[in-house]
Amino acid sequence: MKSQPAMSLSTKFRAIDVIRKKRDGQELSGEEIESFIRGYTNSEIPDYQASAWLMAVVMRGMTRAETTALTNSMLHSGEILDLSDIPGKKVDKHSTGGVGDKTSLVLAPLAAAGGLVVPMISGRGLGHTGGTLDKLESIPGFNVHLPVPKFREVLRQCGCAMIGQTAEVAPADRKLYALRDVTGTVESPYLICASIMSKKMAEGIDALVLDVKTGSGAFMKKEDEAVFLAELMVETGERMGKKVVALITDMDQPLGSFVGNSLEVVEVLDVLQGDCSNDLWQLCIELSGWMFSLGGISPNLEHGRELAAKLIASGQAMESFEKMIGLQGGDPRVVDDPKRLPQATHLGRVVSPQAGYITSIDCEALGTGAVVLGGGREKKEDSIDPAVGLVLHKKVGERVEKGDVLCTLHYNAESRATRARQMILESYRIGEAPPGKRRALVHRVITKAEKA
Amino acid sequence: MKSQPAMSLSTKFRAIDVIRKKRDGQELSGEEIESFIRGYTNSEIPDYQASAWLMAVVMRGMTRAETTALTNSMLHSGEILDLSDIPGKKVDKHSTGGVGDKTSLVLAPLAAAGGLVVPMISGRGLGHTGGTLDKLESIPGFNVHLPVPKFREVLRQCGCAMIGQTAEVAPADRKLYALRDVTGTVESPYLICASIMSKKMAEGIDALVLDVKTGSGAFMKKEDEAVFLAELMVETGERMGKKVVALITDMDQPLGSFVGNSLEVVEVLDVLQGDCSNDLWQLCIELSGWMFSLGGISPNLEHGRELAAKLIASGQAMESFEKMIGLQGGDPRVVDDPKRLPQATHLGRVVSPQAGYITSIDCEALGTGAVVLGGGREKKEDSIDPAVGLVLHKKVGERVEKGDVLCTLHYNAESRATRARQMILESYRIGEAPPGKRRALVHRVITKAEKA
Repeated sequence: MKSQPAMSLSTKFRAIDVIRKKRDGQELSGEEIESFIRGYTNSEIPDYQASAWLMAVVMRGMTRAETTALTNSMLHSGEILDLSDIPGKKVDKHSTGGVGDKTSLVLAPLAAAGGLVVPMISGRGLGHTGGTLDKLESIPGFNVHLPVPKFREVLRQCGCAMIGQTAEVAPADRKLYALRDVTGTVESPYLICASIMSKKMAEGIDALVLDVKTGSGAFMKKEDEAVFLAELMVETGERMGKKVVALITDMDQPLGSFVGNSLEVVEVLDVLQGDCSNDLWQLCIELSGWMFSLGGISPNLEHGRELAAKLIASGQAMESFEKMIGLQGGDPRVVDDPKRLPQATHLGRVVSPQAGYITSIDCEALGTGAVVLGGGREKKEDSIDPAVGLVLHKKVGERVEKGDVLCTLHYNAESRATRARQMILESYRIGEAPPGKRRALVHRVITKAEKA
Repeated sequence: MKSQPAMSLSTKFRAIDVIRKKRDGQELSGEEIESFIRGYTNSEIPDYQASAWLMAVVMRGMTRAETTALTNSMLHSGEILDLSDIPGKKVDKHSTGGVGDKTSLVLAPLAAAGGLVVPMISGRGLGHTGGTLDKLESIPGFNVHLPVPKFREVLRQCGCAMIGQTAEVAPADRKLYALRDVTGTVESPYLICASIMSKKMAEGIDALVLDVKTGSGAFMKKEDEAVFLAELMVETGERMGKKVVALITDMDQPLGSFVGNSLEVVEVLDVLQGDCSNDLWQLCIELSGWMFSLGGISPNLEHGRELAAKLIASGQAMESFEKMIGLQGGDPRVVDDPKRLPQATHLGRVVSPQAGYITSIDCEALGTGAVVLGGGREKKEDSIDPAVGLVLHKKVGERVEKGDVLCTLHYNAESRATRARQMILESYRIGEAPPGKRRALVHRVITKAEKA
């Protein structure tokens, strides 16, 4: 006897009725959501019905149960990795995106060195923010398009592997995201949650640490929006039986000092070599501390942080990184010789036009400056230049004199540098008095316990 | 030099920005709306963007200026009749649809007999309500698909002509309506207003009388919804430079006593022959009175009503009807010999199961009963049976004894009659006491003056 769940569900709930119900503010059942998502993925439901439904969701919102059902439906639209044959807890980290955020490249090998398995599936740069895949590809030969069997092999051999989304993972999300992008339905925490969580849950993980950015360089500029999304993702993950924690972290200025693809790999190597001088180090220790704690390696966060620092100091984290690079086809010699990474042909300076204190940086404008240099894509079809970017010499709160170098531009085309220099300079606000006390890097930690 | 207004507007306003702006509750400019509607009509904007925008409109609403701009854009998506070479004021009537509402067939020849020009473009039955075109087509040979030159010729010769929508009239509405139907975006007064008014304005009329139905047989069950739509249409029409009045009229039971296509033509002939015994007559006098008043034939409504009664009494209205039937290819002998209209093979009775007073009729259920008999379409592709329907012998407020005939069914298929009989019987509510005083047939009249 053949089972026909798709057919029976699709005929049970008509798309038009599901749209109307959401339009009128009623709660959809899990079956209705599953039927709609399945129908859309199968192309039984056309784009024009899906976009009307998405707009109704944007405007009416969703309950926690609906959000979980949506995430589950999107997750089950594709393959879910079964990593049970690889020993160790599977733990991942996901960030909502920022400028200079290269923590993934530190965390995957660091967590693996501590005994976790990190099956990280990442994305590319979006708008003013960088993307993990673009950064990895600045390492000569590094292949982010591993087939699943090869991905498993790398994971088994070094405990971490970093690839791009495969066609098999959450196809409903890929289709829905492309539609949302052109129908004004991106900006919904419920849809963002389902998109992120369905992809992460497809990795077959046991636990997830979320880094939800807020500030001028983040997609969620306002803290309360970031907290709302974080709570939604934590609860959705918990409802799906996973351990999830979310850190609300600062993105009012770039993380670390390097922005740009190969430049960010250089800064990753610095951290893995023990450079603990800046906020990038601090955030990596916090996030990996949580990974060790959720993954059961550490009994508490404090132990997790200490373990992370030890794994860096001992060189074990760097060793994992080097091993992963080699296993994914990259040139592991970059670890000892960062000059093997792509280098820009020109350096330029952005200098302070006045003396004073840096009171703020418009982080989105600065990130856009890096995109203009060629480090990101202005249009989807653009290729990126891995060598370009900028190195910040002064960050918020620091004293500058007139003529001091605020940052160094690494560039290959003078015309791009001219446009970018202006944007970057204008992103700085310099005042006479030092700014008030800055907020901590980690604004809040959202766990299920905190919510309850 | 070639002018390219479409191109410049489309490039000036991106569809995604127009969607977002409406989603966020901001008022769209006339140019933005025009650009969007033009782009959609040209297929530059795909269905999935239009449906997202429609859902945002359903949920956010529109200002009066936006509603007028939308109506104007839809109007100008197609041809607008120029009837200036035909002498006389062009006036039409439009109803939002009901059960037994055959006023159009009385009003067009009646108004024409009084010196107005009535270029009526009508629709087919929708759901439980009948359609003017279906009723006309029950007259043997009557052609509702006249090409525009022939339509003009009929208008010139007898002052009225009645056809279906042509491909040239408001193509944006046709495309949008088909999309709304499958995306849960029908139920918006702003979109309903733009749909109705764009088609009516395309007739090249000077004035319009709107009959907005409310009650159990209307699309707007609630009076306040009907009033809202009526005010919107009146103001939109006035903003477009036309004289418009809206009557909020009762649809808590069928209008007149006959429901079904050829049966309704019989009742139209009765009225044109001077049968003034029921609410159909009364509404025809009210609506035509307003047509004469707005069209400048009568100095006031009272004069308009009297003129209408005279034109019926003198036989001039019937003469116009007969002439129009002939000019549109129909058999004018039906006027003197209604037996030439299609006749059902069977008659059946629905009798009262108890003594008492008819306290209410579920008019939508009764209309659906007529559809089940074959008088309307259960699915879009169904053909209709012009001969079937029902004749009411008792209406709300009347005393009945057990076994009294409530209505007579005219049918051709026993199986349909069985289903319909039950539905029709159940639509009656019979109580021991007479119902309270019924509301007037015309609940309210909405004019610009009243609103100001």
